[in-house]
Amino acid sequence: MPQLGLLPRRTCAALLSQLLRRAACIRAVGCHSQVAQAMLTSQLKSHQEKTNFIKTPKGTRDLSPKQMVVREKILDTVISCFKRHGAEGLDTPAFELREFLTEKYDNESGLIYDLEDQGGELLSLRYDLTVPFARYLAMNKLKKMKRYQVGKVWRRESPTVVQGRYREFYQCDFDIAGQFDPMIPDAECLKIMYEILSELQLGDFLIKVNDRQIVDGIFAVCGVPESKFHTICSSVDKLDKISWKDVRYEMVAKKSLAPEVADRIGDYVQRHGGISLVEQMLQDPRLSQNKQALEGLGALKLLFEYLTLFGITEKISFDLSLVRGLEYYTGVIYEAVLLQTPAQAGEEPLNVGSVAAGGRYDELVAMFDPKGHKVPCVGLSIGVERIFHIVEQRMKISGEKVRATETQVFVATPQRNFLRERLKLIAELWDAGIKAEMLYKNNPKLLTQLYYCEKTGIPLMVIIGEEEQKAGVIKLRLVATREEAVKREHLVAEIQKRLSVLSLA
Amino acid sequence: MPQLGLLPRRTCAALLSQLLRRAACIRAVGCHSQVAQAMLTSQLKSHQEKTNFIKTPKGTRDLSPKQMVVREKILDTVISCFKRHGAEGLDTPAFELREFLTEKYDNESGLIYDLEDQGGELLSLRYDLTVPFARYLAMNKLKKMKRYQVGKVWRRESPTVVQGRYREFYQCDFDIAGQFDPMIPDAECLKIMYEILSELQLGDFLIKVNDRQIVDGIFAVCGVPESKFHTICSSVDKLDKISWKDVRYEMVAKKSLAPEVADRIGDYVQRHGGISLVEQMLQDPRLSQNKQALEGLGALKLLFEYLTLFGITEKISFDLSLVRGLEYYTGVIYEAVLLQTPAQAGEEPLNVGSVAAGGRYDELVAMFDPKGHKVPCVGLSIGVERIFHIVEQRMKISGEKVRATETQVFVATPQRNFLRERLKLIAELWDAGIKAEMLYKNNPKLLTQLYYCEKTGIPLMVIIGEEEQKAGVIKLRLVATREEAVKREHLVAEIQKRLSVLSLA
Repeated sequence: MPQLGLLPRRTCAALLSQLLRRAACIRAVGCHSQVAQAMLTSQLKSHQEKTNFIKTPKGTRDLSPKQMVVREKILDTVISCFKRHGAEGLDTPAFELREFLTEKYDNESGLIYDLEDQGGELLSLRYDLTVPFARYLAMNKLKKMKRYQVGKVWRRESPTVVQGRYREFYQCDFDIAGQFDPMIPDAECLKIMYEILSELQLGDFLIKVNDRQIVDGIFAVCGVPESKFHTICSSVDKLDKISWKDVRYEMVAKKSLAPEVADRIGDYVQRHGGISLVEQMLQDPRLSQNKQALEGLGALKLLFEYLTLFGITEKISFDLSLVRGLEYYTGVIYEAVLLQTPAQAGEEPLNVGSVAAGGRYDELVAMFDPKGHKVPCVGLSIGVERIFHIVEQRMKISGEKVRATETQVFVATPQRNFLRERLKLIAELWDAGIKAEMLYKNNPKLLTQLYYCEKTGIPLMVIIGEEEQKAGVIKLRLVATREEAVKREHLVAEIQKRLSVLSLA
Repeated sequence: MPQLGLLPRRTCAALLSQLLRRAACIRAVGCHSQVAQAMLTSQLKSHQEKTNFIKTPKGTRDLSPKQMVVREKILDTVISCFKRHGAEGLDTPAFELREFLTEKYDNESGLIYDLEDQGGELLSLRYDLTVPFARYLAMNKLKKMKRYQVGKVWRRESPTVVQGRYREFYQCDFDIAGQFDPMIPDAECLKIMYEILSELQLGDFLIKVNDRQIVDGIFAVCGVPESKFHTICSSVDKLDKISWKDVRYEMVAKKSLAPEVADRIGDYVQRHGGISLVEQMLQDPRLSQNKQALEGLGALKLLFEYLTLFGITEKISFDLSLVRGLEYYTGVIYEAVLLQTPAQAGEEPLNVGSVAAGGRYDELVAMFDPKGHKVPCVGLSIGVERIFHIVEQRMKISGEKVRATETQVFVATPQRNFLRERLKLIAELWDAGIKAEMLYKNNPKLLTQLYYCEKTGIPLMVIIGEEEQKAGVIKLRLVATREEAVKREHLVAEIQKRLSVLSLA
């Protein structure tokens, strides 16, 4: 779907643009704000009833401060795990030369955001973090690297915002590049997925595993014509959403696959299990005759052995229906799904799709390398946006409160004309590394200040007034509980003592 | 400069694109990698001598793992300071509806990256974080907010990479929106700039301060025609780079300003000083007759009073030549510069321009608000890219080593056939939250493993072999110093003990 046919709200856009131009024009010649402002206001007013046209681009969103706190917490968990496994950080530009991106994503290329040709290079926004990683390896002639990267990627997909899918979203990737002994890095990738999903406490999950060579082998032994490999792949890919019956119908009726071929495929792709299924497939009379399938099954057998040593096989399922969409995979592929929606009373069922996925792509780097040098790679991507969506939904239901700031101390006064004293005091706190706020008012009411602390969850208040100043003390109050006077010169130490009791230092 | 006239390397691009298309095509029909790979390799080979055409887009770069560590450290300092001042986080999309960006940057609009019209809304990459913040406030009808935002912005400037200027770069912004008593938030912004630049230890710095109203006032009393305000502004803006003589020449010869008007301007804009210069200007016979100038000077007087309470005036300079380019400023403006290049023996002089800047923009939000509601704002932006450039240069000279990973423990074996034992052991460490690595080899050499630790700076090694296994112990070695055996079951505790001694826990 190269064109999504979105209709712009051109009328509003044109109007705003025109108004802004006029306002800017007025400002530019020095006749400042008031006039421009008045014009803008009156002209916009006549349109305000029609629509509120301030928005973010379709499929994108802002993250509010409280959402930011939740997302940072998720990212922290993910990045900590990546670092625990010895990964180095990497950052690449948001856009790449267009020719580096096209042809890497097969029929998804139409979803790439192109930049306008403004004179110069033709550029496109990155579609994932994998292709830029491969480009980085080839460009720097690196033969091995274990890196993580966290950053936004952009896809012009039809956004189904309800399920946490956006056109702009974060990816958190971990990849191991290099020629190593078989399945050791692959097993570590699955261990990482297991660790992250466990730590995030999203509920029970399952990591489906397969191998592209097994997929190819199955198609070959079932008699899928080579010209249909790709389209049949994409039918099989739907098995997690629709029934085999419907998939079969699509293959036979829509894609003209012989019914007996479809049935043979169905015999395979409906199976899933553990290491015993791998053994069973290795004995399969047809598959065991196919070189690719045998290689893939051998790889999975070794993988399962390592996963057993890691103690994580209970969450791993060899699933023959898993094919993974992206063109560049060449070996093991995997995808983690939440097993049940974490449904509590009153919670709506969540269908968020996969929350992590990845696989082996041994030939992508060579596509960039001028000499075609191969650097085998395996990696994974954590679907933080979907995870964020789940966590957010759950918090909404539980009513869990999130503080948007980390402020520890509020500097207050009960009296007029204490601004200067407050400013000196708060500077002292900042200089001591204490997170502190005050109201930007000359003479705020004490109640307003108290209310601000309660609303934003600030745990401590220091209060300075005439009385305190005379006595050379400062009131230090644990918001809404008790209050005590401390000596002015001990203030910072006293605050730190209380913060450490509150575990907020 | 709307078009920068960059020439694409079309020949190479076309070739690569064609090759990739063919390779992808081959893969798509199932005839896998080997053939495609061979074709790709051989065809690319014939062109490899001509050019190495893998690159990032002009004006952009990758950040290598070691660069990432340095940048993260800088960002941590900046963000910690923002949080210390009670700021909430915010994230906005990388692109905005195009009409929201155009006309906000005056003659810099040509530097905005536009996205191609692929059907749908017309979009552009954000040019800064200020306009998206104003859009966010207006869209959510927020009347006050203290927020920070860290993210990439994009400008199609002619990149002078040597000085740390890029077309894609990070901005770290802190802004206070809301109607408050005068100069309190403005003073805090300057305090924040002071704190960050001090903590980063970049050497001596100076924060230049002025007020747009003073600029307007000076131009008015000097007799600058309103139609020339803008262009004369941009001449004055060059005073930090070229002499007054050259600026005057530009005004008179190129911009047809009357020589006596230019001289009057020169009398003002060459002055800088502290609070006493503010007092002096308040007594100036011409300026004191101008309402705007008086307002601006009054504001600065109050600002200096607050900065004195914060104890930071020694770094503040009232500088009448400061005008700041961006169209949206309406009041106080400021810009921090490094006073001397931190030149050590052998270090080249650095000219990095300003490292932080900002100001008051009281009318930007109203440009978005359908009802034209005004939300006064003041904020600052830390030039992390330039700071990064300085820190990086300095580290290069000092030879300071940076570790790209945080790995604490390496799992090694001196013997063959210990892969399985290593895998079990490393999983135990990971599960205990210990950052651990091993080589992805069935039978690595002990020397190779030792060398890896030394090269990457891993402080601890655990060594498992036949001997240890028999004795039920594990060797725990402080890399390159000593070695001792510990009981198998105490391993995790022993590692944690040693890490805490090394302050790495």
